[in-house]
Amino acid sequence: MILKRKLSWGPIIGEVKLPLLFTVLVSFASYWAYHRLELRGFSIQTAPLTILGAGLSIFLAFRNNAAYDRWWEARALWGGIVNRSRTLSRQVVSMFRSAEFETDPLARRIVFYQIAYAHALRTHLRKQDPISEIRNRVGDEIADEVRGSPNVPVALLLRIGELVERARREERCDSIQQSIIETNLVELTDLQGGCERIANTPLPPQYDTFPRVIVMFFCFLLPLGFVEAAGWKTVLVAPLVAMLFLVLEAIGRDIESPFGNTINDTPMTALSTTIEIELRHAIGDPNAPDPIQPTKGYLM
Amino acid sequence: MILKRKLSWGPIIGEVKLPLLFTVLVSFASYWAYHRLELRGFSIQTAPLTILGAGLSIFLAFRNNAAYDRWWEARALWGGIVNRSRTLSRQVVSMFRSAEFETDPLARRIVFYQIAYAHALRTHLRKQDPISEIRNRVGDEIADEVRGSPNVPVALLLRIGELVERARREERCDSIQQSIIETNLVELTDLQGGCERIANTPLPPQYDTFPRVIVMFFCFLLPLGFVEAAGWKTVLVAPLVAMLFLVLEAIGRDIESPFGNTINDTPMTALSTTIEIELRHAIGDPNAPDPIQPTKGYLM
Amino acid sequence: MILKRKLSWGPIIGEVKLPLLFTVLVSFASYWAYHRLELRGFSIQTAPLTILGAGLSIFLAFRNNAAYDRWWEARALWGGIVNRSRTLSRQVVSMFRSAEFETDPLARRIVFYQIAYAHALRTHLRKQDPISEIRNRVGDEIADEVRGSPNVPVALLLRIGELVERARREERCDSIQQSIIETNLVELTDLQGGCERIANTPLPPQYDTFPRVIVMFFCFLLPLGFVEAAGWKTVLVAPLVAMLFLVLEAIGRDIESPFGNTINDTPMTALSTTIEIELRHAIGDPNAPDPIQPTKGYLM
Amino acid sequence: MILKRKLSWGPIIGEVKLPLLFTVLVSFASYWAYHRLELRGFSIQTAPLTILGAGLSIFLAFRNNAAYDRWWEARALWGGIVNRSRTLSRQVVSMFRSAEFETDPLARRIVFYQIAYAHALRTHLRKQDPISEIRNRVGDEIADEVRGSPNVPVALLLRIGELVERARREERCDSIQQSIIETNLVELTDLQGGCERIANTPLPPQYDTFPRVIVMFFCFLLPLGFVEAAGWKTVLVAPLVAMLFLVLEAIGRDIESPFGNTINDTPMTALSTTIEIELRHAIGDPNAPDPIQPTKGYLM
Amino acid sequence: MILKRKLSWGPIIGEVKLPLLFTVLVSFASYWAYHRLELRGFSIQTAPLTILGAGLSIFLAFRNNAAYDRWWEARALWGGIVNRSRTLSRQVVSMFRSAEFETDPLARRIVFYQIAYAHALRTHLRKQDPISEIRNRVGDEIADEVRGSPNVPVALLLRIGELVERARREERCDSIQQSIIETNLVELTDLQGGCERIANTPLPPQYDTFPRVIVMFFCFLLPLGFVEAAGWKTVLVAPLVAMLFLVLEAIGRDIESPFGNTINDTPMTALSTTIEIELRHAIGDPNAPDPIQPTKGYLM
Repeated sequence: MILKRKLSWGPIIGEVKLPLLFTVLVSFASYWAYHRLELRGFSIQTAPLTILGAGLSIFLAFRNNAAYDRWWEARALWGGIVNRSRTLSRQVVSMFRSAEFETDPLARRIVFYQIAYAHALRTHLRKQDPISEIRNRVGDEIADEVRGSPNVPVALLLRIGELVERARREERCDSIQQSIIETNLVELTDLQGGCERIANTPLPPQYDTFPRVIVMFFCFLLPLGFVEAAGWKTVLVAPLVAMLFLVLEAIGRDIESPFGNTINDTPMTALSTTIEIELRHAIGDPNAPDPIQPTKGYLM
Repeated sequence: MILKRKLSWGPIIGEVKLPLLFTVLVSFASYWAYHRLELRGFSIQTAPLTILGAGLSIFLAFRNNAAYDRWWEARALWGGIVNRSRTLSRQVVSMFRSAEFETDPLARRIVFYQIAYAHALRTHLRKQDPISEIRNRVGDEIADEVRGSPNVPVALLLRIGELVERARREERCDSIQQSIIETNLVELTDLQGGCERIANTPLPPQYDTFPRVIVMFFCFLLPLGFVEAAGWKTVLVAPLVAMLFLVLEAIGRDIESPFGNTINDTPMTALSTTIEIELRHAIGDPNAPDPIQPTKGYLM
Repeated sequence: MILKRKLSWGPIIGEVKLPLLFTVLVSFASYWAYHRLELRGFSIQTAPLTILGAGLSIFLAFRNNAAYDRWWEARALWGGIVNRSRTLSRQVVSMFRSAEFETDPLARRIVFYQIAYAHALRTHLRKQDPISEIRNRVGDEIADEVRGSPNVPVALLLRIGELVERARREERCDSIQQSIIETNLVELTDLQGGCERIANTPLPPQYDTFPRVIVMFFCFLLPLGFVEAAGWKTVLVAPLVAMLFLVLEAIGRDIESPFGNTINDTPMTALSTTIEIELRHAIGDPNAPDPIQPTKGYLM
Repeated sequence: MILKRKLSWGPIIGEVKLPLLFTVLVSFASYWAYHRLELRGFSIQTAPLTILGAGLSIFLAFRNNAAYDRWWEARALWGGIVNRSRTLSRQVVSMFRSAEFETDPLARRIVFYQIAYAHALRTHLRKQDPISEIRNRVGDEIADEVRGSPNVPVALLLRIGELVERARREERCDSIQQSIIETNLVELTDLQGGCERIANTPLPPQYDTFPRVIVMFFCFLLPLGFVEAAGWKTVLVAPLVAMLFLVLEAIGRDIESPFGNTINDTPMTALSTTIEIELRHAIGDPNAPDPIQPTKGYLM
Repeated sequence: MILKRKLSWGPIIGEVKLPLLFTVLVSFASYWAYHRLELRGFSIQTAPLTILGAGLSIFLAFRNNAAYDRWWEARALWGGIVNRSRTLSRQVVSMFRSAEFETDPLARRIVFYQIAYAHALRTHLRKQDPISEIRNRVGDEIADEVRGSPNVPVALLLRIGELVERARREERCDSIQQSIIETNLVELTDLQGGCERIANTPLPPQYDTFPRVIVMFFCFLLPLGFVEAAGWKTVLVAPLVAMLFLVLEAIGRDIESPFGNTINDTPMTALSTTIEIELRHAIGDPNAPDPIQPTKGYLM
């Protein structure tokens, strides 16, 4: 996630600089050929450009809208994971505690498993190895057990569910309270499934490669359409129009896959660390990590 | 679902290549007639094209938006089916197990029925025969029982509900736990109904055949409007503008019926296999199938 | 609902044929007056048409979007009624049955009441008489009781709720199971209320009559704007542009009131028959009706 | 709410008639000055009008979309209040009744309180005095008690909640049934809060006053841009384009505050009367009022 | 939040006055150079402006839409906090009270904690110190306990959950009633998480700085494009068009960060005071503060 509000030109320009440079060169060549060499056959009228411009604007707006919805939904899903981690730990801490001011050991264990879950989900979505992240939270035995699972975070939720059932059997809570706590596991399964849906289902590629190609053609045609009337100013005007469309095309692509590990993506490292800090605090554990700080304005 | 990001030109061009070729031919004929044969009566001005282009862009954006919403909702519904399959099996496994580390036989049976449900829903939505898919998961007796049902997946949910009720009567779980588990069956019924709604309710055909016809006329008129000023460049410019509109028209149609069995549709085979793999793992069954791999970049 | 994908031109053209013919006549008259009689004072420039065209496209897109949302929400609401009918019957059948393979008589009665509810809601929304539809499902006594009710479907839900309460008192189910089943009645009340909201609240008439009038003026002006440059081709080009806007105007209107009894509306007859077939099957009743088949491609 | 589909020109034209007249006058003056007095310096080209027109259309579409969403959400919230009133009364009637065919007196009282709630919410949202509306439904004592409350409808919900708790203590229902009934009070609180949010949070005024001013300038410039080429037809064309934009501006404003007491607003009087009729019928009370009939096509 | 409907020009013009003045100066300079000094080389044609104008309109509409959705969601989230505060206090007051007309002391304490929660959340979102706001509502002991918490509002919810559990243990309510009350804490956690999501996740900066820069260039080019045909009227027309785009750019930015403490933001001070007034009234506490009044038409 990009936090800084001022310095973001670098990455944007970086993505569009080659086609932009290309447009500048075509503009200059068009000017030279038309007004110096008096070769005029390549110039075109502006009506096709107007029609293409309107069509492209609307298409890119639609594509960017879909990409933005994915980006925002991804953030909302991880927000939900933070919320449900808080609720789960709050409930086991307040309901299980045997004596008034002492956290139940089973509740403690559930909280650690939930911390492990957050880290496991982050690494799972980034196609990294979750086991090293969870070993020191759940112990070697459980880490080895879930290692072979087709879906490590789901396996951890099963372990949490078993601990809650055990708490009910040991009468640390009753069936009703179990049903309250269990709701969080249902919701976490849904939130994880939502993340997997976004991570595994790219936008239809037609919405991705096709506009890029049309925008390239459009940038090539712009100087040919402006050169007759704009003269040397073609070199200024055509790249400006081109930049609007190139950037529109680029910023949709930047945010359409929000579970990568790039500066535009959901800051899962920061969010899972927030979960760890708050949950350790809730059970009075002093070994909380420090919050993740933005590096050069980017939060990962 | 299309996974590869690079090679998708084939299918797109395939759909629009005939009208595109037609536009190229009209462009060439227009150029020849106007500039070589000096027949000028057929040329038109560009103002009608500008008005048509703006109107068509907005119409197609609306249609594509509706189609995309259907496509994404379909994927979300199947994501929900994955989530609820996980939750149902997690709950029966953790709550029913009599001894600490042994899965209850009734829970095992429910998990197999749920695997059968996923395959039955996939075949039901694709208008295929579900019975052969479910026979080796639920046994011949149940397979024969549900064969005559007007809706096989619904009949399977009824069988699962009966097993849960039986577990309550045999005191493997209590009423509260039954109510927790039952919620999944309610939700699965809703998700299935959502899939059937999308599969059985096409977009109003006005949004489908009408834009195609107008786009065809538009492609025919483009060269007639550009030929006077663009000369031989008509052959380049008119097809480019035509391609934007033809592809816009095509990609909405590609995704508007997401429960077919084409490369643009929800990968139900892969998703129901994922369900089978994860659920078999959860009950320690070793006979899980392999995950479905994309073939040439397409996942079905 | 229109199922056929090919033959829908009839109804669309039917709606717009008069204004389209009018545009053709004005086009022809304009051409004759301008180019034959050399009366030129009535011709206008195209800039006002471009501005009007852009404004109208965007307005109609917004109106059609709102109409489509109503149409799709209506279908989703009825989908929800199918889902909840399935869930209600599944739950009473699996939970109430006294012996293992025999449906409880009270469950049977609830299922018949629910079938009656679906038919009553359909006729209620179409402003038809529901009593004849429900008499043979609930018996004369109940039919006469609910006849005087201000809202017959609501009165049926009250009867179903009373039967569920009776089942609890007779210990066919416990309070928890009652609460599970009761949820369906709450949801059905909400779904019915959603249908009534759409049926009783038309789009603000400003979104309806106003665009029609502006489109008519626009169609009249198109030939006047094109005639100078387009000559005899005005007769082709002006009606084509006019058709785009006339159809855009018409198709929003077609779908904005989805609970009528026309070919564009929610197929409530088919859906309530589906409910009857599936629910009768669930209780082993052999008297299920046949599914409603599309007539000439239309499903009502 | 406006029910009639035909006669709505009066109010629309009423709102825009002054600026429309102004445009007609400017058009006439422009024509006279340019073509009769041959003063030509004030005429402008049409390109700025095209750019302004496109920008304004899109801005107004966005504003009208937001206004429509508020209007439709307001209607849905009141629909929800109708639904929950039905459900609450259905549940207390079916669950509390001591003897089989006789309504429990506490259930009766809750139903009357709920009727009072609907009227109190209506008057609360319209900034009218709710006490006179509720006195004859809840009795003088309660009316006097809630009079000093900072939020009368919320105070009524508290009274209903207390009656439900009393029913549980008097064993007319158990805890589970109380939890079923209580859900309605939670939902009614949310629905009321949604209404208050819309009533108390106007659209950002930038979306309101700003477009009006720009539209006025636009209407003034239209004749200046058209007069050179359109001659006397300026008097027809400029007002037509102006009318499209003036009406677009007006109809968003009409519906953006849906809890006033104007013809475009949510018909709260009719809806709260519907609640009263249905709820009185459910408890067999004969003193139901008559339904509110539309007056001249308007339902309040 | 801005309540007044009339006087809002000041802040809007304030934001755009520098670039607007710049446009006026460029317009005047262009006019002077072109028509007085007869320097004509800098003038450009209008086609690039038309294409840029359409592209920018659509881009700004998309950006403003996203910003508006954030603004409205923020308001809805705080509306939800008001609703859940009402429901929580209503439930503990009606369910816990031991004698018929006397509020239970534990219920009283929960209500005060909830008041503190609302103030703590407001200050938390505005990055202010919450402790001073909550000390006189929860007492010094609790205030000191939660001071070191990484998230003060979450720590307060844990305290409320513990009080509810204590009430259950002291048999002031049963498990079922606890589960009803607990739902509010779950929902408040979700609502708070939603607020934090909006507060901590700015719009992607590409949607923010990029359109501003393009609009600036656009404003600079407008006079250059209009000057040839518009003459001295450039000084009127170019700034008008510029103003439309400058204001469109500004009003999105105004509302995109709704949890600041500016006139366009969610009035959290007013809403948390409303919560305090209503909740104190519900427990009969006379020390309610006065409602926050708008100052000069702004509510904070």
